[in-house]
Amino acid sequence: MLNSKPFTVLVKPSVKEAANAINAAVSQRRTILVIGDCWVHYSGRASSKLEPGERILIIKEDGSLLVHRSVGYEPVNWQPPGCIFHIQAKDNALEIHAVRRKPAESVKVFFDEIHMVSALSLVDSGEFSLYASEEDMQKAILLEPSLVEEGFKLISYEKKVEPGFVDVYGVDKDGNLVVVEIKRKTAGNDAALQLAKYVDAIKSKVNREVRGILVAPNIAKGVQRLLATLQLDFKALDPQKCAGILKRSKTRKLETFFKKDCSENC
Amino acid sequence: MLNSKPFTVLVKPSVKEAANAINAAVSQRRTILVIGDCWVHYSGRASSKLEPGERILIIKEDGSLLVHRSVGYEPVNWQPPGCIFHIQAKDNALEIHAVRRKPAESVKVFFDEIHMVSALSLVDSGEFSLYASEEDMQKAILLEPSLVEEGFKLISYEKKVEPGFVDVYGVDKDGNLVVVEIKRKTAGNDAALQLAKYVDAIKSKVNREVRGILVAPNIAKGVQRLLATLQLDFKALDPQKCAGILKRSKTRKLETFFKKDCSENC
Repeated sequence: MLNSKPFTVLVKPSVKEAANAINAAVSQRRTILVIGDCWVHYSGRASSKLEPGERILIIKEDGSLLVHRSVGYEPVNWQPPGCIFHIQAKDNALEIHAVRRKPAESVKVFFDEIHMVSALSLVDSGEFSLYASEEDMQKAILLEPSLVEEGFKLISYEKKVEPGFVDVYGVDKDGNLVVVEIKRKTAGNDAALQLAKYVDAIKSKVNREVRGILVAPNIAKGVQRLLATLQLDFKALDPQKCAGILKRSKTRKLETFFKKDCSENC
Repeated sequence: MLNSKPFTVLVKPSVKEAANAINAAVSQRRTILVIGDCWVHYSGRASSKLEPGERILIIKEDGSLLVHRSVGYEPVNWQPPGCIFHIQAKDNALEIHAVRRKPAESVKVFFDEIHMVSALSLVDSGEFSLYASEEDMQKAILLEPSLVEEGFKLISYEKKVEPGFVDVYGVDKDGNLVVVEIKRKTAGNDAALQLAKYVDAIKSKVNREVRGILVAPNIAKGVQRLLATLQLDFKALDPQKCAGILKRSKTRKLETFFKKDCSENC
């Protein structure tokens, strides 16, 4: 046993040694790795069984649990933070039982052969910063059209017009058609000129007012004057804000999607 | 260094020792764990930065990559299978560079202090079986109404009627109203009687034909006779099949959702 705190490694421990080490580590709220031959039973809303095989089990400080196989980036079994753990050596197997109350869920991981147990006190206060792509900004606008302006409504996106594809296409609160061009970095004169081309292309086809809005975190010096000359608008939008909106939308449940869908059809 | 193949552990290796061990393990397509102080740069469609802190890096046999912090069940950075890895010791830091071509993405993980490197040849052919819940069966039917019968169309779900909530409510190809009751296990007489109550409750309110369909993996002995008496139908549906449908739907991209959405509005 190599014990250089805050980092413990047990190589090829017995079931009993592993149970003792994991019990101690859980009570100390350490991050735990268990590698070995295991099988898993899950029951909750649904239920699942994973037959024996060698895998990596991770228990985190916050009581979340992951079982990873040797392939695939997704865990085969997992539980969100807040599990209560019951660990015991029983019939020559190590049983790690993770329980949640609401919703009631139970994951039991049984190990019969253990290659390694490691307990870690990870020090980590580093910040994670995500910078959105233009595509992400577009998706955020599709989810929340008011990011462009109050009362803005979508008609389409990636609409093909003569010089290329319009990022977002809609109508404003007064019924004018609106062409939106998105840039994830400081927008220059080229972005303003590109938007003007799209606006002109659409104007030539419809007998209706067409506005152009350039959406970007900010614009380069002098671009405001060009936008004014071309009668185009600018809307400042932070890509980071878009990333946040997308992140929230991705964690929305399938249920939300159905509820929305149903209210339209019922 | 403890080297009991197919399982290698290096505790507190130097940057150079770690680079050599990881290079060897990547070429042997082993699963690799690296624990230590690291920072991460990602660039691709979007970009992100993760400031220094102690984390767990997992590289899998299939070339997928995960960076896990001490809290949260989701990885902070990840790449799907198929990455190409470039590993080097550079300026007293270990650089692990994972590259993908389509779409072009790059994740660089830099370690300056390494607690442990472990290389594993995990033997795992165990099957994973997921058994769906009633809620999952319902969701699968909402996604694919034809699971109930050809031509079935949804009106609503969890519709409140006098005795409780109807699981799924729709119309058949002949325009009859249909009440669907779902059971995840063998359905008994109680399920048939429950469905009959819902059908009667709706019949009392509408001037239209109302059918009842019991959906379950199978029915208990004698239930078929009761169903016939009550003029109700039975449709066999495998919960496992529903789980598969849901799994596929969850991996569909946000984009698909928007494309569908747009085709309705445009």
